[in-house]
Amino acid sequence: MPLSLPAMRWIRGYERSNLRGDISAGITIGAMLVPQAMAYALLAGLPPQVGLYAATLPVIVYALLGTSRQLAVGPVAIVSLLTASALGAVADADSPKYLAAAAMLGLLVGAVHLILGAARLGWLVTFLSHSVLVGFTAAAAAIIGISQIKHLLGVAIPRSDHLHQTLGDLWNAAPAAHLPTLVVAGASIVTLITIKRFVPRLPGALVVVAGSTAASALFDLAGQGVRTVGEIPAGLPSFAFPVVDVALVGDLAPTAIVITLIGFVESIAVAKVYARRHRYEIDPNAELIALGSANVVAGFTGAYPVGGGFARTAVNDSAGATTPLASLITAVLVIGVLIFLTPLFELLPQAALAAIIVVAVRNLIDIAEMRHILHVKPSDGVGMGIAASATLVLGIEIGIGVAVIASMLVVFARMSRPHSAILGRIPNTTSYRNVRRFSNAEVTENVLVLRIDAAMSFVNAQHIKRLLVDHATDVPAPHDIVLDCSGINDMDATGAEALVEAIDELERVGVRLHLCDVKGPVRDVLHRSGTWARLHQRIHATPHAAMAVIHGEPSPIDHTAMGIDEPRIGS
Amino acid sequence: MPLSLPAMRWIRGYERSNLRGDISAGITIGAMLVPQAMAYALLAGLPPQVGLYAATLPVIVYALLGTSRQLAVGPVAIVSLLTASALGAVADADSPKYLAAAAMLGLLVGAVHLILGAARLGWLVTFLSHSVLVGFTAAAAAIIGISQIKHLLGVAIPRSDHLHQTLGDLWNAAPAAHLPTLVVAGASIVTLITIKRFVPRLPGALVVVAGSTAASALFDLAGQGVRTVGEIPAGLPSFAFPVVDVALVGDLAPTAIVITLIGFVESIAVAKVYARRHRYEIDPNAELIALGSANVVAGFTGAYPVGGGFARTAVNDSAGATTPLASLITAVLVIGVLIFLTPLFELLPQAALAAIIVVAVRNLIDIAEMRHILHVKPSDGVGMGIAASATLVLGIEIGIGVAVIASMLVVFARMSRPHSAILGRIPNTTSYRNVRRFSNAEVTENVLVLRIDAAMSFVNAQHIKRLLVDHATDVPAPHDIVLDCSGINDMDATGAEALVEAIDELERVGVRLHLCDVKGPVRDVLHRSGTWARLHQRIHATPHAAMAVIHGEPSPIDHTAMGIDEPRIGS
Repeated sequence: MPLSLPAMRWIRGYERSNLRGDISAGITIGAMLVPQAMAYALLAGLPPQVGLYAATLPVIVYALLGTSRQLAVGPVAIVSLLTASALGAVADADSPKYLAAAAMLGLLVGAVHLILGAARLGWLVTFLSHSVLVGFTAAAAAIIGISQIKHLLGVAIPRSDHLHQTLGDLWNAAPAAHLPTLVVAGASIVTLITIKRFVPRLPGALVVVAGSTAASALFDLAGQGVRTVGEIPAGLPSFAFPVVDVALVGDLAPTAIVITLIGFVESIAVAKVYARRHRYEIDPNAELIALGSANVVAGFTGAYPVGGGFARTAVNDSAGATTPLASLITAVLVIGVLIFLTPLFELLPQAALAAIIVVAVRNLIDIAEMRHILHVKPSDGVGMGIAASATLVLGIEIGIGVAVIASMLVVFARMSRPHSAILGRIPNTTSYRNVRRFSNAEVTENVLVLRIDAAMSFVNAQHIKRLLVDHATDVPAPHDIVLDCSGINDMDATGAEALVEAIDELERVGVRLHLCDVKGPVRDVLHRSGTWARLHQRIHATPHAAMAVIHGEPSPIDHTAMGIDEPRIGS
Repeated sequence: MPLSLPAMRWIRGYERSNLRGDISAGITIGAMLVPQAMAYALLAGLPPQVGLYAATLPVIVYALLGTSRQLAVGPVAIVSLLTASALGAVADADSPKYLAAAAMLGLLVGAVHLILGAARLGWLVTFLSHSVLVGFTAAAAAIIGISQIKHLLGVAIPRSDHLHQTLGDLWNAAPAAHLPTLVVAGASIVTLITIKRFVPRLPGALVVVAGSTAASALFDLAGQGVRTVGEIPAGLPSFAFPVVDVALVGDLAPTAIVITLIGFVESIAVAKVYARRHRYEIDPNAELIALGSANVVAGFTGAYPVGGGFARTAVNDSAGATTPLASLITAVLVIGVLIFLTPLFELLPQAALAAIIVVAVRNLIDIAEMRHILHVKPSDGVGMGIAASATLVLGIEIGIGVAVIASMLVVFARMSRPHSAILGRIPNTTSYRNVRRFSNAEVTENVLVLRIDAAMSFVNAQHIKRLLVDHATDVPAPHDIVLDCSGINDMDATGAEALVEAIDELERVGVRLHLCDVKGPVRDVLHRSGTWARLHQRIHATPHAAMAVIHGEPSPIDHTAMGIDEPRIGS
């Protein structure tokens, strides 16, 4: 067993020269993680120590099982928000059931990860398109930021899953903002931004936590009505099997699946960035096992779901982490805090933690990446826009569902109206190219060469048939249409039928349809549907060969060599 | 307005020679429709006159607005079953609310049709694949047939949406079957099948209705416990605005959408068959308006949702219908029956109607078509099987939902693991073909030509990248990989990034990646993402051109003529 532990790879080959960077990164992330863990617990509606619990054993488990050397695991913003939304629906805040449900959710998220990993379904996450994810993340970040405004203003408004209601409540409550809280919040935000811009090596969150706690003690902020974190039970979390409540499991299961998908996609995306930078490989299925185990441990130690975070991983790398030893040092630091330092946080204003969250999630709204996507592929913007607006309007869980379906529909819509091109011959070659792009491409009178760029299936069969038949009435009218099938990657039964219909309708108006460049999988379908036998003399190797046959010349390629003798191989 | 009515086209140009066929078909369909309408009303849990109402004004409206000349509109089997399932969930059978809900459902189905038609979304129905529809229809027909067995046996069992429960109840009730009912049912079925096989021109349903009614009067079957249709109120339906109950609308809306999709797909499919046979055009959006109006009228006249039926349309055509005049004659006949002949049906045994349904839906289980699909494209069988089994096990409404999602997932699964081929040169040509299909194709040492047959998107980007990078370790190791992009029809931002990653990783192990046959839409994306500029010298017109450049010969095609001067046209 110890031999197969992924950690053995870096432990055996550990080089002393890496120690300095790992220690430095471990301490930096520790200083960043302690306040963040408390803040994200607050975001999830949980007491601060639960965030710290999530920053201990799960971190150690990932360091031993993970294949990323920089990924910083622990409480993360979007997972915390999803946790709040799921738990708010099944239990009252601050109730023992809420705490138990948080642990149960960790266990379930871990189980979903492990099941996907055991089934080697790491590739499933590819169904979430990058552009959809960018839109969703930005919207989720906005929701998170807005959810913290009440803490910045020092007002109490009811929890709501509807953004417009939260905004309305905030608008109504704003005049009653609590001035001392507002001052703490403003000072924290200004400090965080200033440090980030001018002294980026300083752990801003730690400075804000220390400074605001000191201010709280000096000016008795709690006495003036500023909400503080309050007493945090000292000591380590204890192992406990979460109480299994079948109804609760049923209620939490859908969110567990959503958290797994979102959390895993975020983790694997950021892990890949640094794996590429440092030239090593990430194994998605091993990552599922590692993150799943970390979440199971989170469930067993009264914590809540964890993931790999964007910001902390970036800091971890820039602070010099080269192995998971850095994460082990971080976990030891957090354990030290839990044992010795919890009394220090009693006076910490909640507004300071809210400020830390707001500044952290601001970076999740990635305007530059949005612009890049819109520039490279404007149609990807549709999925991005739908994901962002659905998440803002319908809430985070329905939002991601809508986004996934929308990104599938965008693919379908593109397939249903495929790109096509009329081809002409490039002079002195046998190449035929799109006449709209190659001004020197020459068309032949009365012979139309058409290329359609999509697999023919029920999604687009009728559209393609119409496209072919409508070209029969072109002026001047063609007597032969050559369909370049190089882009027709596949064909289903509906597509095969539509092709036969097109051949029939064209023949009725005196136009012969030829095919060329027919790929294996399509060839198999044409064979089995009988179309190959019917068209036999009108199937050619290339547009050039088709043109030769149409003009009565011998085909430049022996027709019998077209692979029709082995039509069933490798479909 | 009258000028724009679609009916004006056939009314103005009406030829006397068509009159004979239209009258003959109108009478034939009338004789078929009267018993079918009553039978399908029974299937929907409605009294027989409601079926007759649905066979009057809606038929006239479609005749005036429709673009099909043969489509026979009225009550149809699957829509009746869906109606029963929807109404059973919101009202007790035989209650006034049940009747009101049926009319409201007609109105809603009409509204959904009209909305889709106004938005010109007729193409949406292409998302239901043919194979999925064949599987779903067969399962629905089986459910319909089984639902009628209780009438054939003359036993009472509770309505259930679960097939296994219905089958269990039938099994338990079978020993208590009512012998006289069983005799009527058996005789009806034998008569129907015999007539269909040996005297197909005779309206079998009418013969069974007349014969069984006569037998009922002669032998006092009602007195012996055979259930009869009972008193049917004479007279025409009256126009009435259905009572709008917001909660009811909400309950019925999902079914209205399902009925619209299924009903419209069935109607348009059968309409297309006869349009093709008689060489005229069907306009899907005009059909949505026509069928939508027919359903709205059904709602306003106390009827229930209607559609275009397979069987009646086939008979309509073979009996000689060439214009919708035939349907107008049918409607007048049904109106005559409603005014004068309803007392005749009082003694009609319900078992005879059930027999008519069972024999009619038997043809919806299309074994020959299933075999054809499995032969032409075995993977289409997956969608067909899922649709059939999901409908049988989960019920008709969830079944169709599962089927649609399954058919989309099948497309996605195929896209995520695209077909690819290693290409070799066909001797004495410039063509490169799959070496597994063309035994004479020759590969060049250390240069791998690879063709990948799918648009590169988030669905398969990582898979394609891995495919490319893994080939770097082939034996003997290639120093150049040529990616034939003729099948890469499109590329999204995720695909563009994966390609850059592949180029990087291959360069790291000393392999150069070349592209050839890059299509316009992909060229645009490569341009905007900067990949085109980076690869410039390694993008070629064809595999042959790539090979020439790799071996230090001048490219046979001038590279600057590759259309990169107009990269944004026609994406």
